[in-house]
Parts: sequence; structure tokens; C-alpha cells
Amino acid sequence: MTEPLLGAIEAGGTKFICAVGTPSGRLIDETRIPTRTPSETISDILSFFLARSQKVAALGIGSFGPIDIRTGSPTYGHITSTPKLAWRHFDIVGALGSALNVPIGFDTDVNAALLAEAKWGSAKGYQTALYITVGTGIGGGALTEGSLLHGLLNPEMGHIRVPHDREDDPFPGSCPYHGDCLEGLASGVAMEARWGIDPSALPTGHPAYRLEAEYLSLACVNWICTLSPERIILAGGVMLQAHVLPLIRDRTRLLLNGYVEAPQIQERLEDYIVPPGLGHRAGVLGALILAARAAGL
Amino acid sequence: MTEPLLGAIEAGGTKFICAVGTPSGRLIDETRIPTRTPSETISDILSFFLARSQKVAALGIGSFGPIDIRTGSPTYGHITSTPKLAWRHFDIVGALGSALNVPIGFDTDVNAALLAEAKWGSAKGYQTALYITVGTGIGGGALTEGSLLHGLLNPEMGHIRVPHDREDDPFPGSCPYHGDCLEGLASGVAMEARWGIDPSALPTGHPAYRLEAEYLSLACVNWICTLSPERIILAGGVMLQAHVLPLIRDRTRLLLNGYVEAPQIQERLEDYIVPPGLGHRAGVLGALILAARAAGL
Repeated sequence: MTEPLLGAIEAGGTKFICAVGTPSGRLIDETRIPTRTPSETISDILSFFLARSQKVAALGIGSFGPIDIRTGSPTYGHITSTPKLAWRHFDIVGALGSALNVPIGFDTDVNAALLAEAKWGSAKGYQTALYITVGTGIGGGALTEGSLLHGLLNPEMGHIRVPHDREDDPFPGSCPYHGDCLEGLASGVAMEARWGIDPSALPTGHPAYRLEAEYLSLACVNWICTLSPERIILAGGVMLQAHVLPLIRDRTRLLLNGYVEAPQIQERLEDYIVPPGLGHRAGVLGALILAARAAGL
Repeated sequence: MTEPLLGAIEAGGTKFICAVGTPSGRLIDETRIPTRTPSETISDILSFFLARSQKVAALGIGSFGPIDIRTGSPTYGHITSTPKLAWRHFDIVGALGSALNVPIGFDTDVNAALLAEAKWGSAKGYQTALYITVGTGIGGGALTEGSLLHGLLNPEMGHIRVPHDREDDPFPGSCPYHGDCLEGLASGVAMEARWGIDPSALPTGHPAYRLEAEYLSLACVNWICTLSPERIILAGGVMLQAHVLPLIRDRTRLLLNGYVEAPQIQERLEDYIVPPGLGHRAGVLGALILAARAAGL
């Protein structure tokens, strides 16, 4: 018997990745659509899915946020208080659901990625794990005692407050809501605003990386003390600079200073704070899992 | 049929509360034992339980920490890296279990309190909730999607790092591990060290309270962004100052600045950050729940 076809969307602030694949994680077709206004972007997404001869059985969307995933809420399926003004309060599930007429699974981009990492990647076998992405913005998803954590709405891990030494780093922060929250200090947008160059163009050894590792280490300490994860996955464009991860491990160990008596933290941090096992594929593969769940598979 | 009798211990840094009660939460007998060395304290605890004509069917212990609750771990049942030196690496479950010869349920004091609040108090009906105690130290327990969160070890919520404006507050912090982590800035010990007087003797309107509310609000922001709780319970001696809670609510709302679009946070914070429903009884009642679980009830 052939596997049913599923649609997957990783909805990001700069691009939407749309794919067709199977419940086992085989991707058959894929396209990238630049994020413009909702109507332009949705139109291109529909063209991709409707041009196919075989209809998808369900669609999964892992979306940038904040989003409302509370079934029964009047704003279920909406993007809510995003700084991306054209998308604020946009009903993405409604727009795609009414046009494609299939069941839709909807969650945050980081929760989708975490689902995929838990099934096929670096979080496999763990009951409590954290997936953090450091790119244009900073977001995080958590698996706690085997369940994806939603709680009241969804975690908004990028917006925690961390110590900010303004003598060492006078940059006031770039978050339009909070100024110098973690995202305001350590996102790609913040790095570019502070140093005046695209973070991917910063040379190895640039002081930007020490500062970046400092903020992300303080954040790791806070997430470890609050969630007690068995493993932390650090993903996203900024983390592609492979030399940043060892800096974060070293600084996190120093900041915790022996208080959390687990060998994973005291001796094997290279096996505790890790890169994603699925690389940049986690998001779209996770959206496929959301689609499979929506289809009851 | 009469209910079985259960033993309960709330193990704290200044006192141990020992009680005998029933699975339905009825307390029959209770004593307070000042915390001294492990051998002196354990001896008094055993006298209390062994002096009774009817043996308890199981014992529940909600303990200060950090503790090791991983069944199968070589240090299961031990208190681990506590600043209380005499108790560091003490096998509390082994000492009480071998003397009383009953099954023992063991968890952190805050997890025990949260269990009781979830069954009979302020967290009843919530799937994701947070119980924070601000006393000599600061600790926190979390219920996430219906499960008590343990993860790798246990959360150590008092040790998160928050912004510390050293011009506004030159106090360097009192935590022996981290200096100015949350506990180092906002615990009862920190307040006493900063202001030179017992926090319970500080008059209303003293600047200590504004500062205390500031740190606890920053912490609430971090816990909200990380865990997305449906409700936060603030307990402990410092929170007995009833005027502190409204200060924390106001400041938390300001710091979040509309980013988390939930009516609980934007409109009804007085119903979101709340005092414990069971007051100071939560700990010992939670230990009774741990005992009932250990007895298979």
C-alpha cells in the first residue's frame, strides 16, 4: 500500500518552505516562497499545493509566532502579536484551510522542529528536551516529561530577560516590545544592529561571538534551572558558526558553577548542548508530523 | 473502612514538619523539629513516628534541595549540592527508610507543595502551573501538561539569572554558587544581608519591597516566557507581606508590555499570579500525597 501524501509548511519571517511528503518523513517535492504580504504569500502557497495531480490528505504548519493554537479560541490559527506588522492577527489556518479543504495541524515552528528532532534527530529518546533557534529572532520549544509544552499559549523563550552589562555592551537592544530581552540582545537582528554588518559576514574571532555566547549561556542557565532539560538543541542561522557552540558550553558550565550535579552538565556538556540532528530540515519534517497527526495517522 | 495512616515530612532548612494523616488529607498529629545536624534531626523524626501505636503505611518526604529523585541512580534519595554543609550528600531516604521499614515517596518541597495545591488548592484544574516559594531560599516546581516536571534532575528555579542594576542595587548577591542569581538577590537571606534587618521586620513602604518586586517580576517574566504557565502561585515567608503581590503583578504586566496576548496576563493578573490556596499547609499535605503514591493508594 502506498503511503498517503501530506503537505508541510515551515512558515518563517523571511521564507515559507512548502513541501509534500509521507508520514515516514520522505519529502517528495518542495519549494521556497519569500515571505511578503499575507495575500501574496498565501497565493503562491496555494499554487504549489493545487498544481499537484494528487491532493494532500492533510496539511501541517509550523509557524513563526506568537500564534494561537488553543482549539476553541476565537483566534485559533491566527498569528498574534508578531512584530511583522502585515502578519499581525492574520488567520493563517483559516486562509489555507478554506482554500485547500483539508485538516490542518498547527503549531509553532520550534515545536514542529522539536517534534521532528524527537522522532528522528537529537532529541530522540529524551522525555524532557529543549529546541532553541537563534536566527532573525530567538524561539524555543520544550518537550516536558514526554509532552510538547504549550501551557497558557506557547513558550516565548526568546523574550526572557538576562543580565546586560551596559558598560561592556552599550547596545540598548532591538526588541520592539522589551528592548534588551534575550532576542533584543542576541538575535541575528540584534547582532546586525550592534555591529553594523550581517552576522554571517563576521570573521571568526570577532568580539561579537564572545558576547553572543555570553547571552546564550545566561539563557541556557535560565532554561536549565527552569525546565531541567535532559538535552538542549541549539539551532538556527547564528548557530551555524560552529565555533560558537563550544564557547556556549564552556561559559554555561562556568556560570552554573557546579550547582546542578549531573554528569551531563559537569562532565559531558558536549553531549548536552548539541546541534540539531536534522539540520535545517527539522522544521519542515516537523510540519509533516503535524500533518500526519491532523490526518489521524 | 478506616483510611490507612500515612507519614509526611516537610524537610526544610530551618525546621522539619512531621505529620501523620490520611490519603484524603486529614492531618491527625504533627510536630516541628528544628533542623540541626542530620543525625540529631533524624533521631527526633524517628522518635515521633516510632512513638505511635499505629505504624504508618508509607512515608512521603518533600525536601529542600537539590536532591536526587532519579530511581536507579546511585545517589537516589540523597540531598546533593546544598549550601547547608552538614546535609550535603546526606542519604535522607536511606536513613529514614531503613529505620521505619516502609515505602518512601520522595520529591522536592516545592513539587510536594504543588501536588497539594493541584489537588486541593490554587492550582486545581490547571494543567500547567508553577509553584514558587520565596523564603530563606527561592525554589520552584512546575506542573507541565498535567505532569510534575523533573527532567534531568529537578528545576532549580531560584538560580536563574536576572538583570541586576548595580547602580540601583550595589548588593553583590548572597548565593555561594552564583552571587547575584535570583536567590542571591531576592531570598530572605539576601534581603537580610542587604538591609541588615530581618525581612519580616521591614516596615511597609520600605524601598526593600520595590526592589524585591522588581526581581520577582523579572523572574515571573522569565518563567512565563519559558514555561507558559496557566497560573503562578507565589508562596513562602517573604510573600506573607500582602502588599508585595500587587507590586509584582503591576511590574510583570509592564515588563511583558503586551507581548503575551492572553487575557489572564493582560487583564486578570490578580487571578494569574496568586497566593497559595493552602497557605503554609501545602508542603506537608503534598508530602501526604507522596506517601499515598508510595503506598500505591
